[in-house]
Amino acid sequence: MKKYFLFILFNFFAIALIAQSNNSKQGKYVLVIHGGAGTILKSNMTPEKEKLYKQGLQNALNAGSDILKKGGTAIDAVEATIKVLEDDSLFNAGKGAVFTNEGKNELDASIMDGKTLKAGAVAGVTNIKNPITAARAVMDKSEHVMMAYKGAEQFAAMNGCETVDPSYFFTTQRWLDLQEAKKEDSLKALHKDSTTGLLKQPDNHDYKYGTVGAVALDMNGNLAAATSTGGMTDKRYGRIGDSPIIGAGTYADNNTCAISCTGWGEFYIRLVMAKTISDRMQFAHESLKQAADDMIMKKLPALGGDGGMIGVNKDGNFVMTFDTDGMYRGYVKSDGEKGIEIYK
Amino acid sequence: MKKYFLFILFNFFAIALIAQSNNSKQGKYVLVIHGGAGTILKSNMTPEKEKLYKQGLQNALNAGSDILKKGGTAIDAVEATIKVLEDDSLFNAGKGAVFTNEGKNELDASIMDGKTLKAGAVAGVTNIKNPITAARAVMDKSEHVMMAYKGAEQFAAMNGCETVDPSYFFTTQRWLDLQEAKKEDSLKALHKDSTTGLLKQPDNHDYKYGTVGAVALDMNGNLAAATSTGGMTDKRYGRIGDSPIIGAGTYADNNTCAISCTGWGEFYIRLVMAKTISDRMQFAHESLKQAADDMIMKKLPALGGDGGMIGVNKDGNFVMTFDTDGMYRGYVKSDGEKGIEIYK
Repeated sequence: MKKYFLFILFNFFAIALIAQSNNSKQGKYVLVIHGGAGTILKSNMTPEKEKLYKQGLQNALNAGSDILKKGGTAIDAVEATIKVLEDDSLFNAGKGAVFTNEGKNELDASIMDGKTLKAGAVAGVTNIKNPITAARAVMDKSEHVMMAYKGAEQFAAMNGCETVDPSYFFTTQRWLDLQEAKKEDSLKALHKDSTTGLLKQPDNHDYKYGTVGAVALDMNGNLAAATSTGGMTDKRYGRIGDSPIIGAGTYADNNTCAISCTGWGEFYIRLVMAKTISDRMQFAHESLKQAADDMIMKKLPALGGDGGMIGVNKDGNFVMTFDTDGMYRGYVKSDGEKGIEIYK
Repeated sequence: MKKYFLFILFNFFAIALIAQSNNSKQGKYVLVIHGGAGTILKSNMTPEKEKLYKQGLQNALNAGSDILKKGGTAIDAVEATIKVLEDDSLFNAGKGAVFTNEGKNELDASIMDGKTLKAGAVAGVTNIKNPITAARAVMDKSEHVMMAYKGAEQFAAMNGCETVDPSYFFTTQRWLDLQEAKKEDSLKALHKDSTTGLLKQPDNHDYKYGTVGAVALDMNGNLAAATSTGGMTDKRYGRIGDSPIIGAGTYADNNTCAISCTGWGEFYIRLVMAKTISDRMQFAHESLKQAADDMIMKKLPALGGDGGMIGVNKDGNFVMTFDTDGMYRGYVKSDGEKGIEIYK
């Protein structure tokens, strides 16, 4: 009698378990990407250049969705997506990274798995071809979350990340951007407050900022987010922006959403942008759209910042929110819905 | 007639304004500090050592409360408090900083003003006597929030922070700690997964972590928080913990609370500890105590981490929460209430 009871009990739990697993294996996926936000105006763009940007975004979406449609994980998808954007010299990450004041390329990246809340980040690496793979290595192969400069490079190289000579990151356009920025900055320096050495924010800071990001929901209901950047043109003093900071530029939690940000990084750090959007969903029961709209369209400009973000929630609803003139962006869903856009 | 009406209207607003300003100038202050959390057992402590620790905490409380009682700002108070703890070789920050694997001292600090949400942080500085003053300079004198390594040192020196030869940070005890840690780590290395190079968390990580922190409410109702650390003994790969990360180790917002954390930094980054406590107060309408208890006593150990935090809210209520055996801590209030404690 007792045996039968146990048999029935076991079957009950087995059925419950299968129902649960089918529920989480919801069979749909979503991938959303950005290639930076700023003063991106149609009037400044040629049809040829526009086509190149859109092709770059499409290539990245393809890389990530190839993984997701085969049942791959969100974390693998965002990493693969970011690698394609890093290898494309149009975007300020990897090969297209901007130059520091010293004429170097110092790269930042971060990645987070919403299933485990594990995360990895690198800041200031100069010889890792794909900084996002270094961030992934920090997440998977160390006890740490964040590594910086030489130490991060050493760890990434030890753990199989492809290294390159720093000259790999040289692109003519970014070099010209640096000369332009230096000219502007030396003009500003004449006006700087000599008693405090206070640095003024550039009046036109658009060319200074750029980031790439990806967020994904996979067919098992897992969320992940990743962000990569070359930072600010003409940056000095080892400045670290929001991109490699978990909670600011990147966050993912299966219970809420996955977020990647782009914009004026200092304001994203002060607002702890990505985690605050997640917290508003969790604790104020706001939708992803409500939380993102209020943070990007109200809280961010109220402090004096600007930029955008992408996010996807556990149900596959997604946002691409920005308060600038444009944001390179795209998305693809398992139901065939897709899009690539640049302007407001 | 219209003139009288305007006169009355003006007076009405003037009175309202004065009432408002008296309300925010509430006249009370609170200062709370920590000197790190971990396996701090009475059985391992001598009466002489305990007295030194308590005296160190008292000196720090005196420095901060001297400012607060004169009507000074919370941000000035937390900076002054942290400087005293940094100058005391008992605590893992400034003069008492632990050594990296390479036998260097790399210091991190951050500071945040709850009135303006302005923040500053430095990571990996090696020749700034008081890293908290460098974080304050980043906040006050740059357009940035976070700077790292050589660049941060250059900026701090340019902006009047006292520099020292790196040998200033040498202390015999920390050097012995490093030798001990290296012995333990080389034993671990024998067991590490040779295919991935995965680093195992040390079984006994208590001696590896330590931080100092301060949070304050000033008589004008402003909140501020600051944190400083030497990081982990034997740290490698340019590891950055939670202390210099706004949102993780430090956060302050006049609308909610000021927080400084201490513990196993990686978990504090993944949970975005300080900002999440603030968000739970703001969005879930929890008290500071409810939010801190749930995060430190439940969410943190659930992920496998441990440590503590201090916090003060806008009404002057404060917490000193930890799930370890002890946390060096103390507080002082304008009503004369005060205390210094070490054990659970």
